[in-house]
Amino acid sequence: MDALGGDRGPDEVVAGALEARSPAIEPVVFGPASLEAGGLELVATTQEIGMEEKPAEAVRGKPDSSLVAACRAVGSGNAAAVVSAGNTGAMLAASLREIRRLPGVMRPAIAVIIPARRGPSVLIDAGANADSRSEHLLQFAEMGAIFAEEILDVARPEVRLLSIGEEAEKGDQVTIEAHHLLVESDLDFAGNVESRWLLEGAADVVVCGGFTGNICLKLLEGTIRSVYDGLRAEIDKTAGGKLGGLLIRPAARRWRAHLDPELHGGAYLLGLRGLVVVAHGNSSRVAIANAIRLAARGVEHEVVAKLGERLAGNTADDRVSILAPAEFDGQER
Amino acid sequence: MDALGGDRGPDEVVAGALEARSPAIEPVVFGPASLEAGGLELVATTQEIGMEEKPAEAVRGKPDSSLVAACRAVGSGNAAAVVSAGNTGAMLAASLREIRRLPGVMRPAIAVIIPARRGPSVLIDAGANADSRSEHLLQFAEMGAIFAEEILDVARPEVRLLSIGEEAEKGDQVTIEAHHLLVESDLDFAGNVESRWLLEGAADVVVCGGFTGNICLKLLEGTIRSVYDGLRAEIDKTAGGKLGGLLIRPAARRWRAHLDPELHGGAYLLGLRGLVVVAHGNSSRVAIANAIRLAARGVEHEVVAKLGERLAGNTADDRVSILAPAEFDGQER
Repeated sequence: MDALGGDRGPDEVVAGALEARSPAIEPVVFGPASLEAGGLELVATTQEIGMEEKPAEAVRGKPDSSLVAACRAVGSGNAAAVVSAGNTGAMLAASLREIRRLPGVMRPAIAVIIPARRGPSVLIDAGANADSRSEHLLQFAEMGAIFAEEILDVARPEVRLLSIGEEAEKGDQVTIEAHHLLVESDLDFAGNVESRWLLEGAADVVVCGGFTGNICLKLLEGTIRSVYDGLRAEIDKTAGGKLGGLLIRPAARRWRAHLDPELHGGAYLLGLRGLVVVAHGNSSRVAIANAIRLAARGVEHEVVAKLGERLAGNTADDRVSILAPAEFDGQER
Repeated sequence: MDALGGDRGPDEVVAGALEARSPAIEPVVFGPASLEAGGLELVATTQEIGMEEKPAEAVRGKPDSSLVAACRAVGSGNAAAVVSAGNTGAMLAASLREIRRLPGVMRPAIAVIIPARRGPSVLIDAGANADSRSEHLLQFAEMGAIFAEEILDVARPEVRLLSIGEEAEKGDQVTIEAHHLLVESDLDFAGNVESRWLLEGAADVVVCGGFTGNICLKLLEGTIRSVYDGLRAEIDKTAGGKLGGLLIRPAARRWRAHLDPELHGGAYLLGLRGLVVVAHGNSSRVAIANAIRLAARGVEHEVVAKLGERLAGNTADDRVSILAPAEFDGQER
């Protein structure tokens, strides 16, 4: 656990780690020697990577930061998974450097769980790659399907491709090409889906490029907040509304809690030789604890090994050098 | 007015046209000779373009469809503007063929008004172009700014570029390049904005490629609906909630009406030699009337002439042949 990630400070992170501690989970905290770790093992580090730092540069220049050192612990086999609420781009760069890609993986991708009304969906890539090619999207779909099988317990996940119409010929060039690749794949591909169904429940796995996925994720979060805030402002305009507002408060809180990104705690970076979970920057201790449990679930279900088996078949000569960590500069979740 | 566009049938369209009729607005209806036009002028047409038809093919094959004939009336100067709730791709293809691009315009774009909490924003391109280059995005921004000046009465519109982070280096390659072009432009460019601010109020004009814009528009619509439906389902679970639900109903209706895409009636196709408004497929008579009024407002403010003046300065040898109507095949709003 990277104690220095997260907008609410290291004490909140430690509190979350303590909450997640169980007979099956033993959090190890990475942070300054002065940190009060509440009885958890502390690995003292001397550097810190800020939320606004350029990922590749920061990771190169701060090898003893809590973030990089926590990733290194996974790379060296001293930890089963790493969790950070810090700079997502830096986590990607550090993971690529310290944990490395699985054989056959072209690009790691971010998988997030969308709390859709009909049940959770996996959105992949939610922002690891700003520019993607169609063969990347195919692999994101493969990784997302394994994630849905192992983490969401879906036997044969239905995969859909996010586009601007349901027909195969709708979309930008990359999406149209990806549609054809998905049709030919072994996945349970059910065609394109429009973004209007994302929160209703589009499929077990919704695949798209990282630019589109990141825009969707942030638009979902912001729109949910704006709809709620606007409704509350209207309700507060009349006495009857205010009374009604009090009466619906429990229902509103339940529904908002369901939609809360903290529910699932974080996003997976898939395609690496170890388990990496990135929590929301603004994570509370509850969200941190959920992120750690999400990581533990991935360890328990051997998500990395299963990705490795499935993707090892993919071999292409040009894959090794495609991804320099520098490419992640400037991306964030 | 294309009477055959719209999921609710021609009678609903005619009712909307009658509602919009005023001393300043004289709707002319295009549709079958048998149509009851309620006293409006009817131009009889013999063909119909369906919502699922391939745009370029349909427009080529059905020159006497209500949609194409209505566009032709603008191209020939017999009408000041055209409105359709039909196939958006076909409207684009028909407009390009019958009305043609303004000199200097590389790609027409769809401009929609987002009813953001802080006031309306123009989102452009909301889906005319599935693949865009950075210079297209610059021109979308220029067209959006003129739209905001004339239709939203904003003296000097603030323009922002939709991306996955506020920093100039965040985004896909096209967006990063567009950022630099916007910095060097005469526009009041305030940098990138994240999608989370779209419904809150990001800027007077938010510019992006058509694939991204279309995904955002549909995600906004779907998320608003899902948040409302989910909240209602929670409220209905308890007696107290139901009572509260009754009390907040007027507030909920006001707010939902504010967010309703019907409020502004439609989207403009900008960059053509005439005014083209596309209404939502599911438009009610109220929405149709609003779309016609929106078109009339564009005529009154001479939006086309102002776009022509501003964009005529742009000349590049390669512009004439870039856009074949066939390119719009498969795009929709």
